[in-house]
Amino acid sequence: MRGVVLHAPGDVRVEERDDPKIVEPTDAILRLSATCVCGSDLWPFRGLDAVEGPSPMGHEYAGVVQEVGSQVSTIRPGQFVVGSFFASDNTCEICQAGYQSSCIHREGVGAEGAQAEYLRVPLADGTLVATPDLPPDDLVPSLLAASDVLGTGWFGAVAAEAGPGRTVAVVGDGAVGLLAVLATRQLGAERIIAMSRHESRQHLAREFGATDIVTERGEDGVAQIKALTNGLGAHSVIEAVGTQESMLQAIGSTRPGGHVGYVGVAHDVELPGEELFYSHVHLHGGPAPVRRFLPELIDLIWNRQIDPGKVFDLTLPLEQAAEGYRAMDERRAIKTLLRP
Amino acid sequence: MRGVVLHAPGDVRVEERDDPKIVEPTDAILRLSATCVCGSDLWPFRGLDAVEGPSPMGHEYAGVVQEVGSQVSTIRPGQFVVGSFFASDNTCEICQAGYQSSCIHREGVGAEGAQAEYLRVPLADGTLVATPDLPPDDLVPSLLAASDVLGTGWFGAVAAEAGPGRTVAVVGDGAVGLLAVLATRQLGAERIIAMSRHESRQHLAREFGATDIVTERGEDGVAQIKALTNGLGAHSVIEAVGTQESMLQAIGSTRPGGHVGYVGVAHDVELPGEELFYSHVHLHGGPAPVRRFLPELIDLIWNRQIDPGKVFDLTLPLEQAAEGYRAMDERRAIKTLLRP
Repeated sequence: MRGVVLHAPGDVRVEERDDPKIVEPTDAILRLSATCVCGSDLWPFRGLDAVEGPSPMGHEYAGVVQEVGSQVSTIRPGQFVVGSFFASDNTCEICQAGYQSSCIHREGVGAEGAQAEYLRVPLADGTLVATPDLPPDDLVPSLLAASDVLGTGWFGAVAAEAGPGRTVAVVGDGAVGLLAVLATRQLGAERIIAMSRHESRQHLAREFGATDIVTERGEDGVAQIKALTNGLGAHSVIEAVGTQESMLQAIGSTRPGGHVGYVGVAHDVELPGEELFYSHVHLHGGPAPVRRFLPELIDLIWNRQIDPGKVFDLTLPLEQAAEGYRAMDERRAIKTLLRP
Repeated sequence: MRGVVLHAPGDVRVEERDDPKIVEPTDAILRLSATCVCGSDLWPFRGLDAVEGPSPMGHEYAGVVQEVGSQVSTIRPGQFVVGSFFASDNTCEICQAGYQSSCIHREGVGAEGAQAEYLRVPLADGTLVATPDLPPDDLVPSLLAASDVLGTGWFGAVAAEAGPGRTVAVVGDGAVGLLAVLATRQLGAERIIAMSRHESRQHLAREFGATDIVTERGEDGVAQIKALTNGLGAHSVIEAVGTQESMLQAIGSTRPGGHVGYVGVAHDVELPGEELFYSHVHLHGGPAPVRRFLPELIDLIWNRQIDPGKVFDLTLPLEQAAEGYRAMDERRAIKTLLRP
């Protein structure tokens, strides 16, 4: 099959790879309908994360089940399914508490490389969620978004306790930040402040439900959020970047007793204990337990109540993956969908 | 009046100070029935916090109202009252949300020095809570404990979401940690693991409701907590020390999706972002909003349902404050009560 391999920073190739096979009796093999490039894929692409030899890339996927292992009982060949970047048994105590991305049996799907024609998914029964039927083609981008960026933005909004009566700020205008705006709107918050300095992203943020835009960053951004909230800060702030500046911006923008939901993968972040102590905020986040939200998200998409697929502003054949990476790296695209 | 003044590390003196006077019309003057030495007073006593000239000491207090300012309407002379180390208006949006220690008008009471015969308390109506009547003498230590260490341990337990069905661990066996055990018991948790290596403190922890004792610290302590919880970690962990080791011990002892309540005043803490991200814990804490809990705590003490005053294992006349500091510094005493 054809699949994306990163050989070195900036060196993305689409090449022939072995077809995946059932390894464990709990596995499923999917023929992917769509996959995409994640903001986190740009860290090794830019050389900010080490690239140790040729690496299959991609961890977001939606497609049709081709084959299942002998112990798979609820997922069947022919179903259209969506899964998360962490496979989970969905039965252990941690999964039952809603933290499937910390399942005691979790396995990263990313190591298999989802930017490809086919994908092996471990723990298929616990990981995959089927749509009611084969989806019409125009729903596929939104279903793919549920696999990671929508689920991650949603978790950020839930972790930040976004909801009715609360003013919510979102730090980060990538796909996750924009979909955190959409999630916040769905969760019932009336006032949603998107922090963005890019016009096309501001436009999409407003379309997803943002009521205010703040273009400043860092301390100036914090000052703007306070100016919009009687000097107190927002009730809920979603952090969707993962840098020291964005974390401190999120904490500083939150009122005492408020909630920070952080979903940007932390890179070189060191939180100063004293600042955190006196901030009086709640802090929660980490790798999103997308599986917790998938049934609800698929339902909202299937009924056309939300259209998260709008974050894909570039669609390319899988063979042109390298251009897809470059477009995101140069911020010409918010997110690239790849069609195998 | 007589009051405690710290002149330099290790140099505690009881000397003549000016009697406090009403400064703002919202002030009250108290004649203190009891005051005490806090673990946080030991930081400057040990020279770990800078001592910038002679400093009045103490921020924990209970006593009888002597005089009130012209705008004080609910607190009256003759009442026995308890207050917190931060004065608060108890009416602003932050106070109403339960975060009185971040009140937009908050003032530190500690600057006045509560280890003294008299104390000026700002924002008396918002800060002070009166007992139903003048208390019998044997209730005074417990009422004094409510002023800080009980309220702080209670906040730690609430922030860690201690409650029925949850296994709770407590890091730190000072007065706050021990009273966090008591709070956890009151909040309905069945299994409470106290982390302590001192026999007399283990004894009091068990008396307050601890079901298990772990004597190891750091990574070994984390391993012990996991061994006691099916390898998963505790649901709730209360951190009552404030060092880098104790914070990482608390985070490491908490299961994914669990809650850390941290109330140890942070000293030189830098939380590694990546470790926090993948820990999947909730983190909440800071200076305890004792005022939120005071009515309930006073009620429990008044009805003799709890006896937090047991943490005072040394009682001295105010004049012997220096010995009270030394006994705590050398861990000969858990907490010293001073009688003015």
